[in-house]
Amino acid sequence: MALSKQPYKGTRDFYPPDFRGRQRIFDMWKTVAETYGYEPYDAPLLEPLDLYRAKTGEEILNEQTYAFTDRGGREVAIRPEMTPTVARMVAARRQDLSYPLRWYNIGNRWRYERPQRGRVREFWQLDIDIFGVDSNLAELEMIEMSRELMTAFGAKDDMYTIRLNSRKLTNVLLSDYFELDEEQVMRATKLIDRMHKMDEKVFEKALAELVGGRFDELHELLHASELSALPEKVRQYAGDFEALIAAVAARGIGNAVFDITLMRGFDYYTDIVFEVFDTHPENSRSMFGGGRYDGLVGLFGVADLPAVGFGIGEVTMQGFLQTHGLMPDTQASSTDAYIAVIGDQHAAARELADKLRAKGFRIAIDLTGRKVDAQIKAAAKQGIGCVIFVGEKEAKSGRYEVKRLDEGISHTCEIDKVIAIIRNK
Amino acid sequence: MALSKQPYKGTRDFYPPDFRGRQRIFDMWKTVAETYGYEPYDAPLLEPLDLYRAKTGEEILNEQTYAFTDRGGREVAIRPEMTPTVARMVAARRQDLSYPLRWYNIGNRWRYERPQRGRVREFWQLDIDIFGVDSNLAELEMIEMSRELMTAFGAKDDMYTIRLNSRKLTNVLLSDYFELDEEQVMRATKLIDRMHKMDEKVFEKALAELVGGRFDELHELLHASELSALPEKVRQYAGDFEALIAAVAARGIGNAVFDITLMRGFDYYTDIVFEVFDTHPENSRSMFGGGRYDGLVGLFGVADLPAVGFGIGEVTMQGFLQTHGLMPDTQASSTDAYIAVIGDQHAAARELADKLRAKGFRIAIDLTGRKVDAQIKAAAKQGIGCVIFVGEKEAKSGRYEVKRLDEGISHTCEIDKVIAIIRNK
Repeated sequence: MALSKQPYKGTRDFYPPDFRGRQRIFDMWKTVAETYGYEPYDAPLLEPLDLYRAKTGEEILNEQTYAFTDRGGREVAIRPEMTPTVARMVAARRQDLSYPLRWYNIGNRWRYERPQRGRVREFWQLDIDIFGVDSNLAELEMIEMSRELMTAFGAKDDMYTIRLNSRKLTNVLLSDYFELDEEQVMRATKLIDRMHKMDEKVFEKALAELVGGRFDELHELLHASELSALPEKVRQYAGDFEALIAAVAARGIGNAVFDITLMRGFDYYTDIVFEVFDTHPENSRSMFGGGRYDGLVGLFGVADLPAVGFGIGEVTMQGFLQTHGLMPDTQASSTDAYIAVIGDQHAAARELADKLRAKGFRIAIDLTGRKVDAQIKAAAKQGIGCVIFVGEKEAKSGRYEVKRLDEGISHTCEIDKVIAIIRNK
Repeated sequence: MALSKQPYKGTRDFYPPDFRGRQRIFDMWKTVAETYGYEPYDAPLLEPLDLYRAKTGEEILNEQTYAFTDRGGREVAIRPEMTPTVARMVAARRQDLSYPLRWYNIGNRWRYERPQRGRVREFWQLDIDIFGVDSNLAELEMIEMSRELMTAFGAKDDMYTIRLNSRKLTNVLLSDYFELDEEQVMRATKLIDRMHKMDEKVFEKALAELVGGRFDELHELLHASELSALPEKVRQYAGDFEALIAAVAARGIGNAVFDITLMRGFDYYTDIVFEVFDTHPENSRSMFGGGRYDGLVGLFGVADLPAVGFGIGEVTMQGFLQTHGLMPDTQASSTDAYIAVIGDQHAAARELADKLRAKGFRIAIDLTGRKVDAQIKAAAKQGIGCVIFVGEKEAKSGRYEVKRLDEGISHTCEIDKVIAIIRNK
């Protein structure tokens, strides 16, 4: 029986045009991250499963990890996310690294999800993390970079909002003000985290079970969009968070809003969390986000280290760019010119290619010996813009015919002119 | 108990200096591949295990794959190599793609090996493949590119040799000339493949068992370095291979040699194979190689397609570069300048950073509020070459002190001069 030509379920093959589309996004991510002084790191794709048992969250751990036992009996998982790994790496050199430590990674992550629009099992993600900053200057930088990651692709402020919350503040609200015990707070937090994904009636029933007679009061607060709506008893703890919101506004970021229901799924977040939300009516959804996770590095047996980070996936980014008409065309090849070989002039073709490559051009040679028309067609099909013809006459005279496929015009000229034509493609 | 800080056995974490070292290699690979008109593709990390059952070879399949069953009961493997995947992708669009098709991929592969010097479980590799070329012009291009991949890093011809063989020719020798049957030919091929890795006596004993009275004759032939040493009966089939060797020499590649013992491990190779070999006495070893695998695309139920390809790993490449003193220093950060903040001037620091980033510079800001000396130390430790100081005085006057850490000298100047100083770092 023939082997299957399909990629593994829920994953994608990247043919050159797909690859170029993804690469544009990666290149932009790299530029933004490095512009803010972040340095690239990488880590193995497999990690001990224990790394995710600590703080990744039950849904991912129990339902979505690609976990297995290796030939040596070790329990491992293909990374579903990068944060535990970066915390591990920082912990391993806790004393030797210099802070604030700014790192980024672009790489694949795997989750066993039911494949559907915008959800795939293998996706690539940019992770940005800063270690060693206690103050909300770190959060401010993360929010600035989130905005920059959007504007770099041409996004306007009204295409998305940045939602902000403080988990600590929500905790104070639930425990001090609504007087829930620790276990109830945890249940309420998880419930609120799912609020916008649940049926409204189901949500309200579950919430009422938790807070009883004070349901209306909490329900109203969960729809507040201003810190001033919070009871004074809670708001007195909001100083640092209010300062951050003011600093974000002072940086000219006008699309940041307070959202007390924002929790983010991961268990490791300790205080401020944020999320970028697409406002397009047809694509209205959370795109990416992050937050502070001060306790994670300490799990590796070293002194704790403050940390803030966020991650953004290429599938979501591409969805956003397509919806808003911002995705660049990726049909054009990276190859500058194609040499069509007439007759047996392969040695002459290689010689010409050498000269053009030495100038930094990317040159492909047809090696098939077929008719010239078929060679031109092949170049066009690959998205290459120029064809240069090399036959006996050209080899002898040093004058080549160059055809610009986009304009459909030809020139016959010496190599310097050939170079000028390719350069202007 | 604290979580382990170690990466999974046999793998490596890439801290920024390690990442930069690897990236230099990837960047060079990309440049060489694209200079020859190759386009990037990518594919999922996981493939159905069946993909490797066909032609990958027993050792890798049975002892080295990271194979497991996913949550949906599918048998999958983390790719140990890329060739089956690229053949699958080409087969899936056999009719739509344009030939010769030139593709490359840089990515990780996984093999469960006993970790030792130069052998790791996760390694990155460049794979280069050309589809649709019947003639040895394809092999010639692959050998040219192999040479180019070496010279691009500064390697001289005497630092390595390129070994060439034709599997077809070896087959003719063993079957027609030595009159071995099919099963014996297969055993002899596998034995010869391991010749240089085995104890000499063990090898000779096994060879003698196969060819009996003609042991001396075969043994001598296996040490031949010229095609002319082959018996006439065999050499008559060597025309195409001899033409390739001549073409390689005509291209000025003086370090290519004939080696009849060269087999390459994979079962899918059908004719010409080649291998680049480090000649350094302390690192004498096979570095990388490839060959023709015309039958692979056809396994996917489409018409066969001629194909030639090779793969080169970053561990081997780095080993070669280090042994020959060609590895560049990777301690310097990609960040251009570090802003040390005096007092509470964070807003002024961000404003200056904005201006410099708008010019394309990569700027990190200290966010800790610690003493200035400690801020300078942090920049130096991260390998950043310039520090700019922003305090109240600087914020008011628009004149900044810039310290070049490499030269130890400082200037106080306006932003245009600051830019000039950073640019010259």
